[in-house]
Amino acid sequence: MSDLRQDPILNHWVIVAAGRSQRPGAFIASPPFDPRLPCPFCEGHEDETPHEVLAFRHVAGETDRPRWRVRVVPNKFPAIENCGGARPVEGDFYHRLDGCGAHEVIIESPRHLASTSDLSSAELTEVFLAWQMRLAFWKRDARMAYGQLFKNVGQAAGASLEHAHSQLLVIPRVPNVVAAEIAAAHDYFQRRGVCPFCDMIRAELALGQRIVAETPHHLSFVPFAARLPFETWILPKSHAGHYEETPRPHLEDLAAIVRSVIRRLEAAVGRCAYNYVLHTTPFAATAATHYHWHLEIVPAMVKTAGFELGSGWFINPVAPEDSARLMREQAD
Amino acid sequence: MSDLRQDPILNHWVIVAAGRSQRPGAFIASPPFDPRLPCPFCEGHEDETPHEVLAFRHVAGETDRPRWRVRVVPNKFPAIENCGGARPVEGDFYHRLDGCGAHEVIIESPRHLASTSDLSSAELTEVFLAWQMRLAFWKRDARMAYGQLFKNVGQAAGASLEHAHSQLLVIPRVPNVVAAEIAAAHDYFQRRGVCPFCDMIRAELALGQRIVAETPHHLSFVPFAARLPFETWILPKSHAGHYEETPRPHLEDLAAIVRSVIRRLEAAVGRCAYNYVLHTTPFAATAATHYHWHLEIVPAMVKTAGFELGSGWFINPVAPEDSARLMREQAD
Repeated sequence: MSDLRQDPILNHWVIVAAGRSQRPGAFIASPPFDPRLPCPFCEGHEDETPHEVLAFRHVAGETDRPRWRVRVVPNKFPAIENCGGARPVEGDFYHRLDGCGAHEVIIESPRHLASTSDLSSAELTEVFLAWQMRLAFWKRDARMAYGQLFKNVGQAAGASLEHAHSQLLVIPRVPNVVAAEIAAAHDYFQRRGVCPFCDMIRAELALGQRIVAETPHHLSFVPFAARLPFETWILPKSHAGHYEETPRPHLEDLAAIVRSVIRRLEAAVGRCAYNYVLHTTPFAATAATHYHWHLEIVPAMVKTAGFELGSGWFINPVAPEDSARLMREQAD
Repeated sequence: MSDLRQDPILNHWVIVAAGRSQRPGAFIASPPFDPRLPCPFCEGHEDETPHEVLAFRHVAGETDRPRWRVRVVPNKFPAIENCGGARPVEGDFYHRLDGCGAHEVIIESPRHLASTSDLSSAELTEVFLAWQMRLAFWKRDARMAYGQLFKNVGQAAGASLEHAHSQLLVIPRVPNVVAAEIAAAHDYFQRRGVCPFCDMIRAELALGQRIVAETPHHLSFVPFAARLPFETWILPKSHAGHYEETPRPHLEDLAAIVRSVIRRLEAAVGRCAYNYVLHTTPFAATAATHYHWHLEIVPAMVKTAGFELGSGWFINPVAPEDSARLMREQAD
């Protein structure tokens, strides 16, 4: 028996079809990286990347040399590059802009680690601090609208290098998914006077069945309409619109819960490919009473195909309550 | 220099970043299927599938036996199944429905062929006829809202079996992507008095640079804001809202252009994994002056990852005009 669930924010539907996990090739393993490949992100290879724009270093003042803990560099193969300005170029029917933005790589460790679970909480705290600092940097650029932070781990999740890294794409328009979430949250706030993510946190705490882990400042749960097996969201428990304003002690707490969720995921299903993405209030917004920043962790264990592409719906072969229970039962 | 292009219907943006195709692993090969695997779709294996619901056969009246040309069976691992009725089950915060629908497989040939280019035009015409007949069948079921037809070819595109097949998922709500296209098309029609897809056809014919192939009744082109390399759309040149009402001679013409596009794709880049999806007017709609059915062909040659997941935008490392030219220059 399948179950149709609607995402309470974006309104797409998910077909929860537990029987489907029995079909051939239902769960995919991520192919390993070739260990002979040289790694441009390892300590000592600083000359193989563009010049760093931020680094946490043991010796202040050094640059593009070893002895760093976290290092941020422009992407060598940028999807988008900085330029003079975002001039709208509009045709009769089609709209386009000159590409204008930035694409940066946050190298999360000098050592060749693969998964977030390999980093210490102290290392991960500095990664999240670097995320904040780069967002705050780009927020001052009036041509830019949003900084999309994301991470790809494993080839099945689209990573082209194994060494632990996350990425920031700074773009001159608010991404459609974020704009749709904000519009829906605004509508909900107008009707009910409360942020829908705050209501979601209350509903999940009351139910308990989809919770994965909890820390003093953050909650993680498998969303009601999880798109894929073991999808997990992490939110600050108190309303917070802007990720970049998170106080330092809360960043340590965030690092602890992110590591905990990834460790539980890997204990439950083995090392697997995954993505995570940060959704936060766009640069230009001055108030954020209705939008609540959150991190979405999405393992790449099942293939999405023509149905998802054509419909915008998803087929999830594992019930969200089962995904949550399997992770919750693991040691922290 | 990258170029930001907005989809004229769905409004998401695509970053066209030609330099990106130089990064490691930019284009992925689809792993081959294990040739030792038994195939439940080959002629003579009819007892390995659920009972057929439609077949075009050499001998009328036979069922679940050899000597067929196209055969439609329920999916052995259905994402959704028929049931008593779609009863809404609504909680305080979350909405759900009992799963209710159908999941069918259209086996496109008795022979173990892999790609649409391996089928003859006559075979493919019968496949598109079977699509029509199954849509028309389910349209009479008042509990159902839409039939999503799609095809996955190659493991990288999510296929779990190699043998040429397409799928129909019948669902009790209109898919969000189709609903969004229809809403945008309705809005455009209200403002300009014409279907936006008809305007798109006019714009593409006038420009010519993104056209891939043309037949008497259909046009194929790489869309202005193609999400991925070699994405190609096929539309009837005259306005037509309902795919299932396409007259038989037009189906032959459709088969010819679909084969031509896939052959050109494979001549340009080699055999690759791809999906295609049909978007057509939902079951309940009586008039369709503003929505225009179309087939979207999307090769699975680049990995989408955290950025696409988080933003709803795409990064296309091949300019749509280059994709179109490379396919257009191939022999038919």
